[in-house]
Amino acid sequence: MISVVILGAGNVATHLFKGFEKTNDVSVVQWYNRNASSLQPYSHLVDVTDNLEALKDADLYIIAVSDDAISELSSSLPFKDKLVVHTSGSVSVYDLDMKLKRGVLYPLQSFSKAAKLDFDNVPICIETIDKKSYPLLKKVAVSLGSPTKRINSDQRRVLHLAAVFVNNFTNQLYRIGHEITESEGAEFDLLKPLIKETANKIEDMSPFKAQTGPAKRNDKKTIKKHLKQLDNEHHKAVYELLTDSIKRTHGRKKL
Amino acid sequence: MISVVILGAGNVATHLFKGFEKTNDVSVVQWYNRNASSLQPYSHLVDVTDNLEALKDADLYIIAVSDDAISELSSSLPFKDKLVVHTSGSVSVYDLDMKLKRGVLYPLQSFSKAAKLDFDNVPICIETIDKKSYPLLKKVAVSLGSPTKRINSDQRRVLHLAAVFVNNFTNQLYRIGHEITESEGAEFDLLKPLIKETANKIEDMSPFKAQTGPAKRNDKKTIKKHLKQLDNEHHKAVYELLTDSIKRTHGRKKL
Repeated sequence: MISVVILGAGNVATHLFKGFEKTNDVSVVQWYNRNASSLQPYSHLVDVTDNLEALKDADLYIIAVSDDAISELSSSLPFKDKLVVHTSGSVSVYDLDMKLKRGVLYPLQSFSKAAKLDFDNVPICIETIDKKSYPLLKKVAVSLGSPTKRINSDQRRVLHLAAVFVNNFTNQLYRIGHEITESEGAEFDLLKPLIKETANKIEDMSPFKAQTGPAKRNDKKTIKKHLKQLDNEHHKAVYELLTDSIKRTHGRKKL
Repeated sequence: MISVVILGAGNVATHLFKGFEKTNDVSVVQWYNRNASSLQPYSHLVDVTDNLEALKDADLYIIAVSDDAISELSSSLPFKDKLVVHTSGSVSVYDLDMKLKRGVLYPLQSFSKAAKLDFDNVPICIETIDKKSYPLLKKVAVSLGSPTKRINSDQRRVLHLAAVFVNNFTNQLYRIGHEITESEGAEFDLLKPLIKETANKIEDMSPFKAQTGPAKRNDKKTIKKHLKQLDNEHHKAVYELLTDSIKRTHGRKKL
Protein backbone atom coordinates (compact mmCIF):
# COMPACT_ATOMS: atom_id res chain seq x y z
CA MET A 1 0.00 0.00 0.00
CA ILE A 2 1.42 3.36 -1.06
CA SER A 3 0.75 6.18 1.39
CA VAL A 4 -0.01 9.58 -0.05
CA VAL A 5 -0.53 13.09 1.32
CA ILE A 6 -2.43 15.52 -0.91
CA LEU A 7 -1.72 19.24 -0.63
CA GLY A 8 -4.30 21.65 -2.02
CA ALA A 9 -8.10 21.69 -2.28
CA GLY A 10 -8.81 22.62 -5.90
CA ASN A 11 -10.30 20.53 -8.72
CA VAL A 12 -7.25 18.37 -9.36
CA ALA A 13 -6.71 17.69 -5.66
CA THR A 14 -10.34 16.78 -5.15
CA HIS A 15 -10.54 14.47 -8.17
CA LEU A 16 -7.30 12.79 -7.11
CA PHE A 17 -8.66 12.22 -3.62
CA LYS A 18 -11.88 10.73 -4.99
CA GLY A 19 -9.90 8.60 -7.43
CA PHE A 20 -7.59 7.23 -4.71
CA GLU A 21 -10.58 6.44 -2.49
CA LYS A 22 -11.54 3.78 -5.03
CA THR A 23 -8.17 2.04 -5.27
CA ASN A 24 -6.67 -0.67 -3.11
CA ASP A 25 -3.07 0.26 -3.86
CA VAL A 26 -3.00 3.81 -2.60
CA SER A 27 -4.10 5.20 0.72
CA VAL A 28 -4.49 8.93 1.27
CA VAL A 29 -3.24 9.28 4.83
CA GLN A 30 -3.71 13.04 5.07
CA TRP A 31 -5.08 16.01 3.18
CA TYR A 32 -3.53 19.41 3.72
CA ASN A 33 -4.86 22.81 2.75
CA ARG A 34 -3.84 26.31 3.84
CA ASN A 35 -7.47 26.73 4.77
CA ALA A 36 -8.69 23.49 6.33
CA SER A 37 -12.35 24.48 6.25
CA SER A 38 -12.54 23.73 2.49
CA LEU A 39 -11.64 20.12 3.39
CA GLN A 40 -14.33 19.86 6.05
CA PRO A 41 -16.71 17.85 3.81
CA TYR A 42 -14.06 15.11 3.67
CA SER A 43 -12.92 15.14 7.29
CA HIS A 44 -14.86 11.97 8.11
CA LEU A 45 -12.93 10.14 5.38
CA VAL A 46 -9.39 11.37 5.91
CA ASP A 47 -7.23 13.25 8.37
CA VAL A 48 -7.27 16.91 7.32
CA THR A 49 -4.90 19.64 8.42
CA ASP A 50 -3.86 23.22 7.75
CA ASN A 51 -0.59 22.84 9.61
CA LEU A 52 2.50 21.94 7.59
CA GLU A 53 4.36 21.05 10.77
CA ALA A 54 1.78 18.35 11.42
CA LEU A 55 2.26 16.59 8.06
CA LYS A 56 2.35 12.83 8.39
CA ASP A 57 5.01 10.58 7.03
CA ALA A 58 4.13 9.23 3.55
CA ASP A 59 5.63 7.63 0.46
CA LEU A 60 4.46 10.49 -1.73
CA TYR A 61 3.35 14.11 -1.36
CA ILE A 62 1.23 15.48 -4.21
CA ILE A 63 1.14 19.27 -4.47
CA ALA A 64 -2.00 20.24 -6.39
CA VAL A 65 -2.20 23.99 -5.87
CA SER A 66 -2.18 26.92 -8.31
CA ASP A 67 0.96 27.22 -10.46
CA ASP A 68 2.19 30.31 -8.66
CA ALA A 69 2.04 28.70 -5.24
CA ILE A 70 3.87 25.45 -6.00
CA SER A 71 7.42 26.63 -5.48
CA GLU A 72 6.82 28.36 -2.18
CA LEU A 73 4.77 25.51 -0.76
CA SER A 74 7.50 23.02 -1.63
CA SER A 75 10.05 25.18 0.19
CA SER A 76 7.83 25.36 3.23
CA LEU A 77 7.72 21.60 3.65
CA PRO A 78 9.39 20.74 6.99
CA PHE A 79 11.36 17.76 5.65
CA LYS A 80 13.82 16.81 2.96
CA ASP A 81 14.65 13.84 0.69
CA LYS A 82 11.03 12.79 0.45
CA LEU A 83 9.25 12.26 -2.86
CA VAL A 84 7.19 15.35 -3.76
CA VAL A 85 5.43 15.94 -7.07
CA HIS A 86 3.31 18.71 -8.52
CA THR A 87 0.51 18.26 -11.07
CA SER A 88 0.99 21.29 -13.31
CA GLY A 89 1.46 21.25 -17.07
CA SER A 90 3.56 24.37 -17.23
CA VAL A 91 5.64 24.56 -14.05
CA SER A 92 9.17 23.17 -14.18
CA VAL A 93 10.03 20.20 -12.02
CA TYR A 94 13.00 22.30 -10.85
CA ASP A 95 10.61 24.80 -9.31
CA LEU A 96 10.16 22.27 -6.53
CA ASP A 97 12.65 22.82 -3.70
CA MET A 98 15.88 20.95 -4.33
CA LYS A 99 15.91 19.56 -0.82
CA LEU A 100 13.22 17.14 -2.05
CA LYS A 101 13.04 14.14 -4.39
CA ARG A 102 11.17 15.83 -7.20
CA GLY A 103 8.73 14.76 -9.89
CA VAL A 104 5.55 15.61 -11.77
CA LEU A 105 2.26 13.79 -12.22
CA TYR A 106 0.53 15.77 -14.95
CA PRO A 107 -3.03 14.61 -15.65
CA LEU A 108 -3.84 15.69 -19.20
CA GLN A 109 -7.51 16.49 -18.92
CA SER A 110 -9.83 19.38 -18.25
CA PHE A 111 -10.99 19.28 -14.64
CA SER A 112 -14.26 20.85 -13.62
CA LYS A 113 -15.35 20.73 -10.03
CA ALA A 114 -18.84 19.51 -10.85
CA ALA A 115 -18.22 17.05 -13.68
CA LYS A 116 -17.56 13.46 -12.75
CA LEU A 117 -14.19 12.25 -13.85
CA ASP A 118 -13.26 8.82 -15.08
CA PHE A 119 -9.49 8.45 -14.77
CA ASP A 120 -9.57 5.86 -17.58
CA ASN A 121 -9.84 8.90 -19.85
CA VAL A 122 -7.09 10.90 -18.17
CA PRO A 123 -3.58 10.16 -19.43
CA ILE A 124 -1.12 10.89 -16.64
CA CYS A 125 2.26 12.15 -17.82
CA ILE A 126 5.06 11.26 -15.44
CA GLU A 127 8.31 13.12 -15.04
CA THR A 128 11.03 12.49 -12.48
CA ILE A 129 14.52 13.82 -11.87
CA ASP A 130 15.60 10.73 -10.00
CA LYS A 131 14.91 7.60 -12.08
CA LYS A 132 14.30 5.58 -8.93
CA SER A 133 11.15 7.57 -8.23
CA TYR A 134 9.52 6.48 -11.48
CA PRO A 135 8.14 3.01 -10.56
CA LEU A 136 6.26 4.33 -7.54
CA LEU A 137 4.73 7.22 -9.52
CA LYS A 138 3.74 4.85 -12.28
CA LYS A 139 2.05 2.56 -9.76
CA VAL A 140 0.12 5.49 -8.31
CA ALA A 141 -1.11 6.61 -11.75
CA VAL A 142 -2.00 3.07 -12.82
CA SER A 143 -3.96 2.54 -9.60
CA LEU A 144 -6.29 5.33 -10.74
CA GLY A 145 -6.91 3.46 -14.00
CA SER A 146 -5.09 6.07 -16.07
CA PRO A 147 -2.99 5.40 -19.13
CA THR A 148 0.51 6.66 -18.27
CA LYS A 149 3.36 8.08 -20.29
CA ARG A 150 6.85 8.99 -19.19
CA ILE A 151 7.79 12.36 -20.65
CA ASN A 152 10.39 15.07 -20.19
CA SER A 153 9.87 18.74 -19.34
CA ASP A 154 9.89 19.92 -22.96
CA GLN A 155 7.25 17.40 -23.91
CA ARG A 156 5.09 18.33 -20.94
CA ARG A 157 5.34 22.02 -21.75
CA VAL A 158 4.38 21.37 -25.35
CA LEU A 159 1.45 19.14 -24.38
CA HIS A 160 0.18 21.85 -22.07
CA LEU A 161 0.42 24.39 -24.87
CA ALA A 162 -1.25 22.08 -27.39
CA ALA A 163 -4.01 21.40 -24.86
CA VAL A 164 -4.85 25.11 -24.92
CA PHE A 165 -5.38 24.88 -28.69
CA VAL A 166 -7.46 21.69 -28.71
CA ASN A 167 -9.43 22.44 -25.56
CA ASN A 168 -9.74 26.16 -24.71
CA PHE A 169 -9.55 27.47 -28.26
CA THR A 170 -11.81 24.74 -29.63
CA ASN A 171 -14.34 25.53 -26.94
CA GLN A 172 -14.20 29.19 -27.97
CA LEU A 173 -15.04 28.15 -31.55
CA TYR A 174 -18.06 26.34 -30.12
CA ARG A 175 -18.92 29.58 -28.34
CA ILE A 176 -18.70 31.57 -31.56
CA GLY A 177 -20.87 28.94 -33.27
CA HIS A 178 -23.33 29.40 -30.43
CA GLU A 179 -23.37 33.19 -30.84
CA ILE A 180 -23.78 33.01 -34.61
CA THR A 181 -26.65 30.52 -34.57
CA GLU A 182 -28.58 32.10 -31.71
CA SER A 183 -28.33 35.51 -33.39
CA GLU A 184 -30.57 34.15 -36.17
CA GLY A 185 -32.82 32.07 -33.94
CA ALA A 186 -31.23 28.84 -35.14
CA GLU A 187 -30.58 26.07 -32.65
CA PHE A 188 -26.99 25.51 -31.57
CA ASP A 189 -28.08 22.01 -30.53
CA LEU A 190 -28.31 21.02 -34.20
CA LEU A 191 -24.52 21.37 -34.37
CA LYS A 192 -23.76 19.02 -31.49
CA PRO A 193 -23.67 15.78 -33.53
CA LEU A 194 -21.24 17.48 -35.93
CA ILE A 195 -19.08 18.64 -33.03
CA LYS A 196 -18.88 15.10 -31.69
CA GLU A 197 -18.18 13.62 -35.10
CA THR A 198 -15.35 16.13 -35.61
CA ALA A 199 -13.75 14.98 -32.35
CA ASN A 200 -14.36 11.28 -33.05
CA LYS A 201 -13.06 11.40 -36.61
CA ILE A 202 -9.45 11.99 -35.55
CA GLU A 203 -9.47 8.84 -33.43
CA ASP A 204 -8.09 6.94 -36.40
CA MET A 205 -7.46 9.64 -38.99
CA SER A 206 -4.92 12.46 -38.77
CA PRO A 207 -6.41 15.98 -38.50
CA PHE A 208 -4.67 16.66 -41.81
CA LYS A 209 -6.63 13.93 -43.58
CA ALA A 210 -9.84 14.68 -41.71
CA GLN A 211 -10.08 18.26 -42.99
CA THR A 212 -12.99 19.25 -45.26
CA GLY A 213 -14.82 22.48 -46.11
CA PRO A 214 -14.46 25.65 -48.17
CA ALA A 215 -10.95 26.63 -47.02
CA LYS A 216 -9.54 23.18 -47.77
CA ARG A 217 -11.20 23.22 -51.21
CA ASN A 218 -10.20 26.85 -51.70
CA ASP A 219 -13.86 27.53 -52.51
CA LYS A 220 -13.59 31.30 -52.84
CA LYS A 221 -17.27 31.83 -53.54
CA THR A 222 -18.42 30.25 -50.27
CA ILE A 223 -15.67 31.95 -48.28
CA LYS A 224 -16.74 35.32 -49.67
CA LYS A 225 -20.39 34.56 -48.87
CA HIS A 226 -19.49 33.63 -45.29
CA LEU A 227 -17.40 36.75 -44.74
CA LYS A 228 -20.29 38.85 -45.98
CA GLN A 229 -22.64 37.10 -43.55
CA LEU A 230 -20.45 37.85 -40.53
CA ASP A 231 -21.25 41.28 -39.17
CA ASN A 232 -19.20 40.87 -36.02
CA GLU A 233 -15.73 42.12 -36.93
CA HIS A 234 -14.17 39.90 -34.36
CA HIS A 235 -15.79 36.72 -35.71
CA LYS A 236 -14.67 37.81 -39.14
CA ALA A 237 -11.05 38.05 -38.00
CA VAL A 238 -11.23 34.51 -36.59
CA TYR A 239 -12.78 33.25 -39.84
CA GLU A 240 -10.07 34.88 -41.92
CA LEU A 241 -7.14 33.71 -39.83
CA LEU A 242 -8.28 30.09 -39.58
CA THR A 243 -9.22 29.95 -43.27
CA ASP A 244 -5.73 31.21 -43.98
CA SER A 245 -4.31 28.60 -41.62
CA ILE A 246 -6.12 25.74 -43.38
CA LYS A 247 -4.98 27.03 -46.77
CA ARG A 248 -1.37 27.04 -45.59
CA THR A 249 -1.63 23.53 -44.23
CA HIS A 250 -3.17 22.22 -47.44
CA GLY A 251 -0.90 24.00 -49.87
CA ARG A 252 -3.51 26.46 -51.05
CA LYS A 253 -1.33 29.36 -50.10
CA LYS A 254 2.31 30.12 -50.63
CA LEU A 255 4.21 30.30 -47.35
CA MET B 1 -43.92 3.99 -50.23
CA ILE B 2 -42.31 7.25 -51.31
CA SER B 3 -40.44 7.04 -54.61
CA VAL B 4 -37.21 9.02 -54.90
CA VAL B 5 -34.73 9.80 -57.66
CA ILE B 6 -31.22 10.82 -56.55
CA LEU B 7 -29.18 13.13 -58.78
CA GLY B 8 -25.41 13.26 -58.22
CA ALA B 9 -22.76 10.75 -57.18
CA GLY B 10 -20.79 12.51 -54.43
CA ASN B 11 -20.59 11.76 -50.72
CA VAL B 12 -24.02 13.08 -49.79
CA ALA B 13 -25.73 11.29 -52.70
CA THR B 14 -24.00 8.02 -51.87
CA HIS B 15 -24.78 8.17 -48.15
CA LEU B 16 -28.40 9.02 -48.91
CA PHE B 17 -28.67 6.07 -51.28
CA LYS B 18 -27.22 3.72 -48.68
CA GLY B 19 -29.48 5.18 -46.02
CA PHE B 20 -32.63 4.75 -48.12
CA GLU B 21 -31.66 1.18 -48.94
CA LYS B 22 -32.28 0.35 -45.29
CA THR B 23 -35.74 1.92 -44.99
CA ASN B 24 -39.13 0.50 -45.82
CA ASP B 25 -40.77 3.86 -46.43
CA VAL B 26 -38.64 5.17 -49.26
CA SER B 27 -37.68 3.49 -52.50
CA VAL B 28 -34.94 4.90 -54.71
CA VAL B 29 -36.36 4.20 -58.17
CA GLN B 30 -33.46 5.71 -60.11
CA TRP B 31 -30.02 7.24 -59.64
CA TYR B 32 -28.83 9.83 -62.12
CA ASN B 33 -25.34 11.14 -62.69
CA ARG B 34 -23.84 13.15 -65.55
CA ASN B 35 -21.29 10.37 -65.75
CA ALA B 36 -23.09 7.06 -65.19
CA SER B 37 -19.90 5.06 -64.81
CA SER B 38 -19.42 6.37 -61.25
CA LEU B 39 -22.74 4.70 -60.42
CA GLN B 40 -21.73 1.36 -61.93
CA PRO B 41 -20.98 -0.26 -58.52
CA TYR B 42 -24.67 0.26 -57.64
CA SER B 43 -26.25 -0.71 -60.95
CA HIS B 44 -27.32 -4.11 -59.64
CA LEU B 45 -29.27 -2.38 -56.88
CA VAL B 46 -30.94 0.47 -58.71
CA ASP B 47 -31.68 1.75 -62.19
CA VAL B 48 -28.84 4.15 -63.10
CA THR B 49 -28.82 6.72 -65.89
CA ASP B 50 -26.87 9.62 -67.31
CA ASN B 51 -29.80 10.79 -69.42
CA LEU B 52 -32.07 13.47 -67.94
CA GLU B 53 -34.69 12.76 -70.61
CA ALA B 54 -34.96 9.21 -69.27
CA LEU B 55 -35.75 10.28 -65.67
CA LYS B 56 -38.50 8.23 -64.12
CA ASP B 57 -41.56 9.59 -62.45
CA ALA B 58 -41.09 9.96 -58.68
CA ASP B 59 -42.52 11.69 -55.61
CA LEU B 60 -39.23 13.44 -54.91
CA TYR B 61 -36.04 14.35 -56.76
CA ILE B 62 -32.98 14.98 -54.57
CA ILE B 63 -30.21 17.04 -56.18
CA ALA B 64 -26.97 16.27 -54.36
CA VAL B 65 -24.34 17.84 -56.61
CA SER B 66 -21.74 20.57 -55.99
CA ASP B 67 -23.18 23.96 -55.03
CA ASP B 68 -22.26 25.56 -58.33
CA ALA B 69 -24.07 22.94 -60.40
CA ILE B 70 -27.42 22.91 -58.56
CA SER B 71 -29.13 25.76 -60.35
CA GLU B 72 -28.27 24.62 -63.85
CA LEU B 73 -29.19 21.01 -63.20
CA SER B 74 -32.59 22.05 -61.85
CA SER B 75 -33.23 24.07 -65.00
CA SER B 76 -32.29 21.11 -67.18
CA LEU B 77 -34.94 18.88 -65.63
CA PRO B 78 -37.45 17.96 -68.36
CA PHE B 79 -40.55 18.43 -66.22
CA LYS B 80 -42.28 20.97 -64.02
CA ASP B 81 -44.36 21.12 -60.83
CA LYS B 82 -42.58 18.16 -59.31
CA LEU B 83 -40.98 18.25 -55.89
CA VAL B 84 -37.23 18.87 -56.20
CA VAL B 85 -34.86 19.57 -53.30
CA HIS B 86 -31.16 20.22 -52.98
CA THR B 87 -28.99 19.28 -50.01
CA SER B 88 -26.68 22.28 -49.71
CA GLY B 89 -26.16 24.42 -46.63
CA SER B 90 -25.36 27.60 -48.48
CA VAL B 91 -27.40 27.61 -51.72
CA SER B 92 -30.73 29.43 -51.72
CA VAL B 93 -33.89 27.42 -52.26
CA TYR B 94 -34.72 30.03 -54.93
CA ASP B 95 -31.69 28.91 -56.94
CA LEU B 96 -33.79 25.92 -57.94
CA ASP B 97 -35.75 26.56 -61.15
CA MET B 98 -39.11 28.15 -60.40
CA LYS B 99 -40.91 25.73 -62.68
CA LEU B 100 -40.48 23.19 -59.84
CA LYS B 101 -41.89 22.64 -56.36
CA ARG B 102 -38.81 23.58 -54.42
CA GLY B 103 -37.28 22.63 -51.10
CA VAL B 104 -34.10 21.78 -49.22
CA LEU B 105 -33.03 18.74 -47.23
CA TYR B 106 -29.84 19.89 -45.52
CA PRO B 107 -28.07 17.15 -43.57
CA LEU B 108 -25.97 18.87 -40.94
CA GLN B 109 -22.98 16.57 -40.74
CA SER B 110 -19.52 16.15 -42.19
CA PHE B 111 -19.65 13.53 -44.95
CA SER B 112 -16.54 11.56 -45.83
CA LYS B 113 -16.71 8.98 -48.56
CA ALA B 114 -14.98 6.33 -46.49
CA ALA B 115 -16.49 6.86 -43.05
CA LYS B 116 -19.65 4.99 -42.22
CA LEU B 117 -22.54 7.23 -41.45
CA ASP B 118 -25.30 6.70 -38.95
CA PHE B 119 -28.19 8.99 -39.85
CA ASP B 120 -29.30 8.93 -36.20
CA ASN B 121 -26.47 11.44 -35.74
CA VAL B 122 -27.34 13.58 -38.74
CA PRO B 123 -29.94 16.27 -38.08
CA ILE B 124 -31.73 17.02 -41.34
CA CYS B 125 -32.88 20.62 -41.71
CA ILE B 126 -35.97 20.95 -43.90
CA GLU B 127 -36.97 24.00 -45.87
CA THR B 128 -39.84 24.34 -48.32
CA ILE B 129 -41.41 27.16 -50.25
CA ASP B 130 -44.75 25.39 -50.54
CA LYS B 131 -46.00 24.31 -47.10
CA LYS B 132 -47.70 21.27 -48.62
CA SER B 133 -44.33 19.77 -49.49
CA TYR B 134 -43.23 19.66 -45.87
CA PRO B 135 -44.93 16.43 -44.63
CA LEU B 136 -43.42 14.32 -47.40
CA LEU B 137 -39.91 15.73 -46.81
CA LYS B 138 -40.26 15.15 -43.10
CA LYS B 139 -41.30 11.53 -43.73
CA VAL B 140 -38.27 11.00 -45.97
CA ALA B 141 -35.87 12.42 -43.36
CA VAL B 142 -37.48 10.47 -40.52
CA SER B 143 -37.25 7.24 -42.54
CA LEU B 144 -33.46 7.63 -42.42
CA GLY B 145 -33.60 7.80 -38.64
CA SER B 146 -32.53 11.45 -38.58
CA PRO B 147 -33.72 14.07 -36.15
CA THR B 148 -35.42 16.75 -38.24
CA LYS B 149 -35.91 20.47 -37.88
CA ARG B 150 -37.90 22.86 -40.02
CA ILE B 151 -35.85 25.97 -40.66
CA ASN B 152 -35.83 28.99 -42.95
CA SER B 153 -33.10 30.12 -45.35
CA ASP B 154 -31.46 32.52 -42.90
CA GLN B 155 -31.23 29.82 -40.27
CA ARG B 156 -29.79 27.34 -42.75
CA ARG B 157 -27.19 29.82 -43.92
CA VAL B 158 -26.17 30.58 -40.38
CA LEU B 159 -25.96 26.89 -39.44
CA HIS B 160 -23.73 26.28 -42.43
CA LEU B 161 -21.48 29.15 -41.40
CA ALA B 162 -21.38 28.01 -37.75
CA ALA B 163 -20.55 24.48 -38.95
CA VAL B 164 -17.37 25.85 -40.52
CA PHE B 165 -16.34 27.20 -37.12
CA VAL B 166 -17.14 24.10 -35.07
CA ASN B 167 -15.99 21.57 -37.66
CA ASN B 168 -13.38 22.87 -40.12
CA PHE B 169 -11.78 25.43 -37.81
CA THR B 170 -11.84 23.10 -34.82
CA ASN B 171 -10.19 20.42 -36.91
CA GLN B 172 -7.49 22.92 -37.85
CA LEU B 173 -6.84 23.55 -34.14
CA TYR B 174 -6.39 19.78 -33.78
CA ARG B 175 -3.94 20.00 -36.67
CA ILE B 176 -1.96 22.77 -34.97
CA GLY B 177 -1.95 20.72 -31.75
CA HIS B 178 -0.60 17.84 -33.81
CA GLU B 179 2.18 20.00 -35.30
CA ILE B 180 3.17 21.46 -31.94
CA THR B 181 3.37 18.14 -30.11
CA GLU B 182 5.15 16.21 -32.86
CA SER B 183 7.73 18.99 -33.17
CA GLU B 184 8.92 18.09 -29.65
CA GLY B 185 8.48 14.34 -30.01
CA ALA B 186 5.42 14.37 -27.76
CA GLU B 187 2.48 12.16 -28.67
CA PHE B 188 -0.59 13.83 -30.12
CA ASP B 189 -2.53 10.73 -29.04
CA LEU B 190 -2.23 11.85 -25.41
CA LEU B 191 -4.52 14.76 -26.30
CA LYS B 192 -7.34 12.67 -27.75
CA PRO B 193 -9.19 12.05 -24.47
CA LEU B 194 -9.11 15.80 -23.81
CA ILE B 195 -10.44 16.50 -27.32
CA LYS B 196 -13.36 14.14 -26.75
CA GLU B 197 -14.08 15.54 -23.31
CA THR B 198 -14.13 19.07 -24.76
CA ALA B 199 -16.75 17.99 -27.30
CA ASN B 200 -18.78 15.98 -24.77
CA LYS B 201 -18.77 18.68 -22.11
CA ILE B 202 -21.04 21.00 -24.08
CA GLU B 203 -23.72 18.31 -24.34
CA ASP B 204 -25.30 19.74 -21.22
CA MET B 205 -23.26 22.86 -20.50
CA SER B 206 -23.05 25.99 -22.64
CA PRO B 207 -19.65 26.65 -24.26
CA PHE B 208 -19.61 29.84 -22.19
CA LYS B 209 -19.80 27.91 -18.93
CA ALA B 210 -17.50 25.15 -20.15
CA GLN B 211 -14.56 27.47 -20.77
CA THR B 212 -11.38 27.06 -18.69
CA GLY B 213 -7.70 27.89 -19.16
CA PRO B 214 -5.26 30.79 -19.04
CA ALA B 215 -7.22 33.19 -21.29
CA LYS B 216 -10.42 32.75 -19.28
CA ARG B 217 -8.48 33.29 -16.03
CA ASN B 218 -6.51 36.13 -17.63
CA ASP B 219 -3.38 34.32 -16.44
CA LYS B 220 -0.84 36.63 -18.05
CA LYS B 221 2.17 34.68 -16.88
CA THR B 222 1.12 31.46 -18.61
CA ILE B 223 -0.01 33.29 -21.75
CA LYS B 224 3.38 34.98 -21.98
CA LYS B 225 5.14 31.65 -21.47
CA HIS B 226 3.09 30.04 -24.23
CA LEU B 227 3.74 32.84 -26.69
CA LYS B 228 7.44 32.54 -26.01
CA GLN B 229 7.28 28.80 -26.67
CA LEU B 230 5.64 29.23 -30.09
CA ASP B 231 8.28 29.79 -32.72
CA ASN B 232 5.88 29.44 -35.65
CA GLU B 233 4.61 32.99 -36.29
CA HIS B 234 1.41 31.65 -37.70
CA HIS B 235 0.59 29.52 -34.65
CA LYS B 236 1.38 32.56 -32.54
CA ALA B 237 -1.18 34.64 -34.45
CA VAL B 238 -3.85 31.99 -33.85
CA TYR B 239 -2.94 31.85 -30.16
CA GLU B 240 -3.17 35.61 -29.81
CA LEU B 241 -6.45 36.00 -31.66
CA LEU B 242 -8.26 33.21 -29.83
CA THR B 243 -6.90 34.29 -26.45
CA ASP B 244 -8.22 37.74 -27.26
CA SER B 245 -11.55 36.21 -28.29
CA ILE B 246 -11.91 34.32 -24.99
CA LYS B 247 -11.02 37.45 -23.03
CA ARG B 248 -13.74 39.40 -24.84
CA THR B 249 -16.32 36.72 -24.20
CA HIS B 250 -15.45 36.54 -20.51
CA GLY B 251 -15.19 40.24 -19.85
CA ARG B 252 -11.44 40.27 -19.48
CA LYS B 253 -11.08 42.85 -22.19
CA LYS B 254 -12.90 46.06 -22.96
CA LEU B 255 -14.84 45.82 -26.23
